[in-house]
Amino acid sequence: MIRQFHLNITKPRGFHLITADIARQIGSLPKSGLINIFCRHTSAGLTINENCDSSVRVDFETVFNRLVPEDESLYTHTAEGEDDMPAHIKSTLVGPELTIPIINGELGLGTWQGIYFCEFRNISKPRTLIVTIYE
Amino acid sequence: MIRQFHLNITKPRGFHLITADIARQIGSLPKSGLINIFCRHTSAGLTINENCDSSVRVDFETVFNRLVPEDESLYTHTAEGEDDMPAHIKSTLVGPELTIPIINGELGLGTWQGIYFCEFRNISKPRTLIVTIYE
Amino acid sequence: MIRQFHLNITKPRGFHLITADIARQIGSLPKSGLINIFCRHTSAGLTINENCDSSVRVDFETVFNRLVPEDESLYTHTAEGEDDMPAHIKSTLVGPELTIPIINGELGLGTWQGIYFCEFRNISKPRTLIVTIYE
Repeated sequence: MIRQFHLNITKPRGFHLITADIARQIGSLPKSGLINIFCRHTSAGLTINENCDSSVRVDFETVFNRLVPEDESLYTHTAEGEDDMPAHIKSTLVGPELTIPIINGELGLGTWQGIYFCEFRNISKPRTLIVTIYE
Repeated sequence: MIRQFHLNITKPRGFHLITADIARQIGSLPKSGLINIFCRHTSAGLTINENCDSSVRVDFETVFNRLVPEDESLYTHTAEGEDDMPAHIKSTLVGPELTIPIINGELGLGTWQGIYFCEFRNISKPRTLIVTIYE
Repeated sequence: MIRQFHLNITKPRGFHLITADIARQIGSLPKSGLINIFCRHTSAGLTINENCDSSVRVDFETVFNRLVPEDESLYTHTAEGEDDMPAHIKSTLVGPELTIPIINGELGLGTWQGIYFCEFRNISKPRTLIVTIYE
């Protein structure tokens, strides 16, 4: 049994906790199974990290900018702005998708885990996530 | 229902768009489901990124070499050449597998998304990917 | 058909080969399918890499410390110690989960592949992995 839906999301550049947005849309879940969340974009991504202290998400932005600097002299793909090629690299470093267990009818995240949507472009863009539930 | 097959691939060092190679082999897909692609190697990997401008793939090679330099003084595992240990690290940074939704009987990639096979060794090696389709 | 279980693990800081621990717990597998392994923590993670030479795992620790230095001047989230925020970043770089094909009733890893559990905190903590088997 498969259930699948789209989730539209528009966020400013940065790392954003979206666990509640996803939980609200998925409704009731099977007792056990898997849920796959897939980001259909190449300058945004998904990861799981700390769900409590927002300073963690601030530091993610700092560290990712340090790992992949916006220095056009490093890149050949520069036509779309200095944030574009770094955004592509960052989306690969975090990854485009997550597969999460369903445990006792709930998202099987740990106590401190939340789902992060990562927007790597300067300009907010409408993004689409695909959620697929397997039971 | 599960369908599973092998895909053999040999590419020079670099990031390669292989969406068409995969689509050709998977044939007709169920209306919805998930497809997992798994790379059975520790110095190659899989990611999803921009499918249009080949300069993106050139810049990926540059940035990954900058993130994980081929400087043997940094490593203890050096017996297989200066490209070997960096290749192991890079394969973990991109990841060994992708799980992609099937939407309306097609690979559910976004408009600009393509599947990249990443070869991190200097010498082209025959690599095997396992494709598993769930419907 | 789904089977799901917990696996408790406590390891010192570093990269650890846990393929045998997982294989021992999963028992007999279906002929084909997928197995998802999910780490319920934000300062630990899972990856797949070389299963033979332990120097690879030593070098992983070195390189990840170089990529994400323990320098509190870089971070705002510092209340839990200088290893805490780097541990969050590293867990995202390796990722929280793996989906691995089951081939002929066995984990479909390549000859040189092993499953790594990555502990990024200085103090060993009891960690929980969720293993979900789809057949």
